[in-house]
Amino acid sequence: MFESAELGHEIDRKTFQKEVPALRAALLDVQYDLLEKREFPIVILVSGVDGSGKSETINLLYSWMDPRHISTLAFAEPTDEERERPFMWRYWRALPAKGKIGIFAGSWYSQPIADRIQKKMKRAEMEETLDEINRFEAMLVNEGALVLKFWFHLSREGQKTRLKAMEKDPRTAWRVTKASWDRLKTYDDLQAVAGHVLRVTNTAHAPWTIIEGTDDNYRSLTVGHIVRDTIRKHLAQTTRGSVPVAPPIVPAIDKRSVLTELDLSQKIDKKSYEKELAKWQGKLSQLMRDPRFQKNHSLIVAFEGSDAAGKGGSIRRIVAPMDARQYQIIPVAAPTDEERAQPYLWRFWRHIPRKGRAAIFDRTWYGRVLVERVEGFCSEADWLRAYAEINDFEHGLVESGAIVIKFWLQISKEEQLRRFKERENRVQTLQDH
Amino acid sequence: MFESAELGHEIDRKTFQKEVPALRAALLDVQYDLLEKREFPIVILVSGVDGSGKSETINLLYSWMDPRHISTLAFAEPTDEERERPFMWRYWRALPAKGKIGIFAGSWYSQPIADRIQKKMKRAEMEETLDEINRFEAMLVNEGALVLKFWFHLSREGQKTRLKAMEKDPRTAWRVTKASWDRLKTYDDLQAVAGHVLRVTNTAHAPWTIIEGTDDNYRSLTVGHIVRDTIRKHLAQTTRGSVPVAPPIVPAIDKRSVLTELDLSQKIDKKSYEKELAKWQGKLSQLMRDPRFQKNHSLIVAFEGSDAAGKGGSIRRIVAPMDARQYQIIPVAAPTDEERAQPYLWRFWRHIPRKGRAAIFDRTWYGRVLVERVEGFCSEADWLRAYAEINDFEHGLVESGAIVIKFWLQISKEEQLRRFKERENRVQTLQDH
Repeated sequence: MFESAELGHEIDRKTFQKEVPALRAALLDVQYDLLEKREFPIVILVSGVDGSGKSETINLLYSWMDPRHISTLAFAEPTDEERERPFMWRYWRALPAKGKIGIFAGSWYSQPIADRIQKKMKRAEMEETLDEINRFEAMLVNEGALVLKFWFHLSREGQKTRLKAMEKDPRTAWRVTKASWDRLKTYDDLQAVAGHVLRVTNTAHAPWTIIEGTDDNYRSLTVGHIVRDTIRKHLAQTTRGSVPVAPPIVPAIDKRSVLTELDLSQKIDKKSYEKELAKWQGKLSQLMRDPRFQKNHSLIVAFEGSDAAGKGGSIRRIVAPMDARQYQIIPVAAPTDEERAQPYLWRFWRHIPRKGRAAIFDRTWYGRVLVERVEGFCSEADWLRAYAEINDFEHGLVESGAIVIKFWLQISKEEQLRRFKERENRVQTLQDH
Repeated sequence: MFESAELGHEIDRKTFQKEVPALRAALLDVQYDLLEKREFPIVILVSGVDGSGKSETINLLYSWMDPRHISTLAFAEPTDEERERPFMWRYWRALPAKGKIGIFAGSWYSQPIADRIQKKMKRAEMEETLDEINRFEAMLVNEGALVLKFWFHLSREGQKTRLKAMEKDPRTAWRVTKASWDRLKTYDDLQAVAGHVLRVTNTAHAPWTIIEGTDDNYRSLTVGHIVRDTIRKHLAQTTRGSVPVAPPIVPAIDKRSVLTELDLSQKIDKKSYEKELAKWQGKLSQLMRDPRFQKNHSLIVAFEGSDAAGKGGSIRRIVAPMDARQYQIIPVAAPTDEERAQPYLWRFWRHIPRKGRAAIFDRTWYGRVLVERVEGFCSEADWLRAYAEINDFEHGLVESGAIVIKFWLQISKEEQLRRFKERENRVQTLQDH
């Protein structure tokens, strides 16, 4: 698949210089449009072989556009804060807000490709990872993002020539390291793995563009044109988020559901309750201090249920035996404006705890398929796709060692009314103090 | 000064149990008031000797109040992301938003006290640090925060007795480590250092409260009462931020200033400009890659000046020789709602770069004493104190190894008008495309 990027594309200096002014003006134009509307972010992935002009292209985009609204994230070694959280956490935290352009120099593709070349990852794992990536990108696109994926290619000979040329030039010599030459040895492996990765992740919603990296002018103009045209097109579209979603697997045409079938009359007497509570709180306290928990796990507890179902009280009893320094309770209310400028799940990702810590969510990411769905705060397509996105989110958590526990607290309509009245009286009593 | 906390205060179980229900109700009451008004945050510092009931008290506050709006931060070893930034960065990032309660189990006092006991910090350095802490807390208070500082005390014998009792109880035995017993050996040193620290930092705006830690009931009720009363009082106050500020040192009764005296006719011819620019860009590029910069420094460049003064163009030329992965440009616009819920400087602290990285601010923290002052967006007291707060902020940056460079770009009124007109035409040309 890389053959078509070894055709020796070239653009002469004169043509290049003639084209650039209009291109720059147009790029600035679309960028300001993007910024003014603040409707969606641009995610640009820059990947490919060493010496193919990746960083040159990024720097060029900065000089052609307004660099104040572009950010570039390089993902070298993860920091310890990143290492103790799910693989995708560092990418979530780096996502550009609506109206902004985020360039990923290295991305969610880098680690899997490197691991596969070094045979640290099995074929089946790789397939699973690529599936997850496809779903992650579909989510971004459905959230309105424009995802542009560039792969910069060089033939083996081309790479050798470029590395030599870079080594000769004092301005670029520092960038050619032993690792660069080492990677030339694994050229064929990279081609094989990358070829497969690009094929599998070349989706309709987030397609790849392979750029021949040999000629600077050709490479620059091509990227410039694509960035200009795709943003322009995206700005002109009135509907965004186009990845179709499958309907729920289990149809429900009667009114029966897991909830209607619940036995709400279950009871426990006060004495047993207190005895059992103390026993289980003690166990929880011990487990939270277990060195294996501290080292390998985090705890995520999610509470959902109607108002007055007892979420607050349950949370109080769960955290009672914990050390306050170990947990965080996240009351989920209306999103802040920074949260609104990001994909829906971003506001939950930001609270994912480190190893040895717990996060207890009072209302959760299920809000999308509950209150938002019921109140019409989001479109049908949005809540429909949320089921799969939530599965992916929780899968990522569990994969990273998190223990994810979800509670739905159910009460009857009558009981809810009784509790509302009780609360009303309590507030009255407080105010009378 | 700790003698008055060795009086053997005690409250019997019956009195305690009689008092608690009303105290809990009142605490919940003030907490909901606080939350509803969202006017200021509560910062509670919990410090003191080991075994004096610090974590018990924190956990008790959680059980008495609504734990969903309290967060507790423990500051053990800094993460690598924290280590590469100024000392205070980790505390800034942990500050509670308006309406919330943030408990600091360990705080900006912990490291200095520990360092001083171990003689890692000289007396003069300690004094300087305490001065900085006083000014930091004055800033918090002036931003509206209620700062409550508790020191939990035990006599030497009392500490021994408590550690032994904790060791016996299987629920608390895990908390008594070798380090706890070791610290008993340095009991006198801690008393001497802490005594001094508390005296110097016992300010009118952020006073200390020493709590005798021996009797659980006394300790719990005292803290509960203080938290209730001070929050209640703070809620009732209509004016907040009471630390007086000194007026500017240099009076200016004529209209002369550094800016009016500038020679705005300075010129450089195009040829020299291009030659010099290339030369200095080359040097900058080299310096940014210097291993000493990578390891020990970060770069913070601040741009201020009137509209059309050339900030954007200067930034473009500064970043041109840099690698896009190494820097971030921060265009300072209106604060987000998360930023508005924090002290003024918080929105700049969050962008402070790691070692080896650069942050370029297009407009800066000087906004407080420029646009906000001129447009009346903040009170006179607010911008007056900002001068000192900014000095402290920049001092902290420099202390951490950051290279801070600030540019004011000045043009004449006539030149500004000329440039505005030029821009208008350019936009017109773009739109005609």
